[in-house]
Amino acid sequence: MRRANLALVLAAVARAGANSRAQVADVTGLTRAAAGSLVTELIDAGLVLERGTSLGGRVGRPSTVLSLNDRGPAGLGLEVGVEHLGACVVDLANDVRTRIRMPAPNRGRDPRAAIGQLAEVAARALEQAEEQGLTPVGVAVAVPGLVGGKGEAGDQGSTVFDTVVHAPNLGWHDVRLADELRTLLPAALRDLPVEVENEANLGALAELWHGDVGRDFVHVSAEAGIGAAVVVDGMLLRGRRGFAGELGHMPVYPDGLACPCGSHGCLEQYAGEEAVLSNCALQDESGDRVALLADQARAQNVPVRRALDKAGRALGIALSGAVNLIDPETVVLGGAYADLAEWLTPGMQTELGARVKIRPWEPAGLVVSALKREGPVFGAATSVVQRVIADPSSVAG
Amino acid sequence: MRRANLALVLAAVARAGANSRAQVADVTGLTRAAAGSLVTELIDAGLVLERGTSLGGRVGRPSTVLSLNDRGPAGLGLEVGVEHLGACVVDLANDVRTRIRMPAPNRGRDPRAAIGQLAEVAARALEQAEEQGLTPVGVAVAVPGLVGGKGEAGDQGSTVFDTVVHAPNLGWHDVRLADELRTLLPAALRDLPVEVENEANLGALAELWHGDVGRDFVHVSAEAGIGAAVVVDGMLLRGRRGFAGELGHMPVYPDGLACPCGSHGCLEQYAGEEAVLSNCALQDESGDRVALLADQARAQNVPVRRALDKAGRALGIALSGAVNLIDPETVVLGGAYADLAEWLTPGMQTELGARVKIRPWEPAGLVVSALKREGPVFGAATSVVQRVIADPSSVAG
Repeated sequence: MRRANLALVLAAVARAGANSRAQVADVTGLTRAAAGSLVTELIDAGLVLERGTSLGGRVGRPSTVLSLNDRGPAGLGLEVGVEHLGACVVDLANDVRTRIRMPAPNRGRDPRAAIGQLAEVAARALEQAEEQGLTPVGVAVAVPGLVGGKGEAGDQGSTVFDTVVHAPNLGWHDVRLADELRTLLPAALRDLPVEVENEANLGALAELWHGDVGRDFVHVSAEAGIGAAVVVDGMLLRGRRGFAGELGHMPVYPDGLACPCGSHGCLEQYAGEEAVLSNCALQDESGDRVALLADQARAQNVPVRRALDKAGRALGIALSGAVNLIDPETVVLGGAYADLAEWLTPGMQTELGARVKIRPWEPAGLVVSALKREGPVFGAATSVVQRVIADPSSVAG
Repeated sequence: MRRANLALVLAAVARAGANSRAQVADVTGLTRAAAGSLVTELIDAGLVLERGTSLGGRVGRPSTVLSLNDRGPAGLGLEVGVEHLGACVVDLANDVRTRIRMPAPNRGRDPRAAIGQLAEVAARALEQAEEQGLTPVGVAVAVPGLVGGKGEAGDQGSTVFDTVVHAPNLGWHDVRLADELRTLLPAALRDLPVEVENEANLGALAELWHGDVGRDFVHVSAEAGIGAAVVVDGMLLRGRRGFAGELGHMPVYPDGLACPCGSHGCLEQYAGEEAVLSNCALQDESGDRVALLADQARAQNVPVRRALDKAGRALGIALSGAVNLIDPETVVLGGAYADLAEWLTPGMQTELGARVKIRPWEPAGLVVSALKREGPVFGAATSVVQRVIADPSSVAG
């Protein structure tokens, strides 16, 4: 009961904008006494701040203003990309307070080497957080692959994973990332919960928490593979076994190109990064392939533009099936695709316009992510914070 | 509070199998006094029965046994099919107590004539219910089309509709079915809530309530058009605007056959009833087209078998996309398709096996509905009962 009420009170401050004990009581329906005592607990735990407000010339007691503590608990998000490592720290108000992104050759790399470097990135992010008075209370790591593991139950029935089961573009299988990372982290982070989550899921949640795309959407992103995630009424649709959101092998042209998966005509063969590069005969250079494609498209390279248009059409065909089936408010083009949106969206709009039948397709239904490739790491850090807001007793002791 | 607790107590009897006041208290966590008083209310409202149990030679007070009242409130389900009308009555224990199905030429029929005949079917079902001591407390009508209307909020955030917005195979537009039907119903039904719902949604809910297909599935059915519905963790996925579940225009062969919808290669052009009939050059006879197809397939008619195999493959392609995206536990083949399952499922299994990538596809994941074409009308009646179980105060006053 106290646990639920602490969450109720913190949500009143965080989401309903209550800024006094009286408003907290109004919003929550708790008595003033109960609300006041729970507010005090949250202040003592460092989650809520109370600032005195001078009333200048007015008569009476100066009132105080409640707000989320911007020098309190924070979430540390980390990311293992195919060609980069990332970190970011998000405070209780969902503000991104620091971010780090560095190139890293993770394709086929020994997990231990990558995790060692990730721990160094985490240490740097921790320093920057501490300089701002922030204290990470949990760590979440975004990975481009399937996650699993001990699967502790988290809040709202969600599940917390610790293992990379299979990340084909990293070449990783059954890497106990949370445990291995924890031993390498600085002391201030070593005892925190560490969660491992799929980057497409976190990218989608980042749109929910930081974007302006509504609470019902299909998010499609690319980092080497094609990732997708479905958000229904503000909740990630995980599927019966947690594998939902596989759009890359949606059959687009069933009698078309052979796919290494054994099937034919999968979306990835038309809209995956490798497929686009090979369709326009660009050298598969190491480094930032998406930047290369964007540069060439901007320079009017005709084969590149044609390959991106073909990719956009394939994405549009696959997504029109998804829209007809799920009826989302928006389709969000995120991750690396967002950097290529200028050349992908015309073909997508054509196919969505022709094939969405549940209602007339409005071009505004296709939204390009403003978070772009930073979505997953923002989502990782924010997921830690959202967990604290949902259950402050985990921090308030 | 009382409302929530009444629901808690009724659910203890209905779902948890509590059969004494003491067990109700244990299951609900209420005090014995509170549980006992709520049980008495439910008995007074006719929702719960208390039967004395003789203890034979044993010493002590004879105990009593609680159960749902099988002579109490019931749900009346009605159905407007393209070629039939239907009715059924379901009691509080979800048992189907009576059912009526009669041919009716509803394709392109004047709505008033069809609704008049539906009211007569309802009157017959009411008689049969009353003979068994049952009292309908609500009416739900399954229709093959898009529903809408005033959209009162129902329980659990679901919405209750009263209008057929568009039913292409009936040729109906903006028919205020609930209001028109109510004026024609016998007195005992005239003041009841009347809900209008899409038959594919109700067919899927019938599988949830009467079938053995789990709580996470994609249900695909056919009655003239192709209908689908997605159930996630026991809840119908309605989509942002209530239009989810449109599988018929999933692009299967994007460069393929033109569809009247204006697009190309939609599933309906390969697996819809009309498409199958025209693919095997069968006369489009009036009457039961599905029975005709089944008879011919059983009689080894090669073009019919080939057309059904082609339909099965197209269904398999469309559904493998849905499975990859949503990760359901099962795919359920229902409605008219269930009568053709013998010839549809081999092609479906082939495509699902080749194209589902989120996990190895197991043939047991494709389930043929045992309810077949009676799913929607069972679902309609049961939805009324489920509403009572979720909120008994609507009946208990």
